[in-house]
Amino acid sequence: MPHIQLEEHLPGITGLLEYRKDTAEPIRELTQILLRGDSILTEGERELIATLVSHKNECRFCTNAHTAAANYLYNDVETCEYVKQDYENAPISQKMKTLLAIAALVQQNGKNVTTASIERAKKAGASDMEIHDTVLIAALFCMYNKYVDGLASVTPTENSFYEKLGERIVNHGYTRLPNGYDHLKK
Amino acid sequence: MPHIQLEEHLPGITGLLEYRKDTAEPIRELTQILLRGDSILTEGERELIATLVSHKNECRFCTNAHTAAANYLYNDVETCEYVKQDYENAPISQKMKTLLAIAALVQQNGKNVTTASIERAKKAGASDMEIHDTVLIAALFCMYNKYVDGLASVTPTENSFYEKLGERIVNHGYTRLPNGYDHLKK
Repeated sequence: MPHIQLEEHLPGITGLLEYRKDTAEPIRELTQILLRGDSILTEGERELIATLVSHKNECRFCTNAHTAAANYLYNDVETCEYVKQDYENAPISQKMKTLLAIAALVQQNGKNVTTASIERAKKAGASDMEIHDTVLIAALFCMYNKYVDGLASVTPTENSFYEKLGERIVNHGYTRLPNGYDHLKK
Repeated sequence: MPHIQLEEHLPGITGLLEYRKDTAEPIRELTQILLRGDSILTEGERELIATLVSHKNECRFCTNAHTAAANYLYNDVETCEYVKQDYENAPISQKMKTLLAIAALVQQNGKNVTTASIERAKKAGASDMEIHDTVLIAALFCMYNKYVDGLASVTPTENSFYEKLGERIVNHGYTRLPNGYDHLKK
């Protein structure tokens, strides 16, 4: 049961974004710019960063939601699973491995990002902006994970819920739809 | 030295907010609403939450900046110092102690927030909205701390820098000034 009174049919982050709409707006906007705006990183690659961080924070709602989005974008279920279990050996580019390594350090503590980890990313072709965005996406998802779990929002167990949510995230992005989350209702 | 090329005269978060202005906008807006918008919590109390979380993440730039803002709002240097060292015995309300305890748990991991810690806050008079805002402020500052330290932005050592920044935060809030951070230049 959530720690505060949230709308019952809105699990995870969805109920929190409805609970306080004025703070939800900039959170949505930041996420839309970072994960869907112009970038050298593909939308799928950015979803992998979000998923890895959420997985390391053990936030089940966010992990499941962004796994579903990544699966939809990659059109497979293996890539994201590999990334969560062992990204250094996942079927992704060398550059993405170095960026995921940075994201994993940010998840622990920003101070843990070493000069060596940054040099490795630059050597693999990562630009300053890609490194910046990786750090900020990792930091943003730590915020999401702490928000979602800190208020004990509801975590659905059915895969079908996350598949619908992942599809929504891919096809409509992170900004608010006129009908909110109505189509996610059972 | 920062991990990416930032403007030299802009330390800490200030250089990052200038580096990518489109993501900076919603970050500023979220902070302004949460820390300066309508709330039962005073601006000083909200700065204490920001400071405690930054202190626990060992982010020196954010700790120093928000300590300065809290000192300015409380018109003393003792309250914030007490909060960082031992908030349960600090000269603050019982309600604030329970909210800081929740913020400290969020800093570790959202999952660490217990029903008991929430019940304690409610018993001390905290509303659902105050609990919500405490969790979101704590989560937001974890994002800031990871962003600032993850890119190794510069941390000034002179107290006078933070005093000026704290004053700016209190008198102008978190939105962008027309002259940016020019007045913080030496």
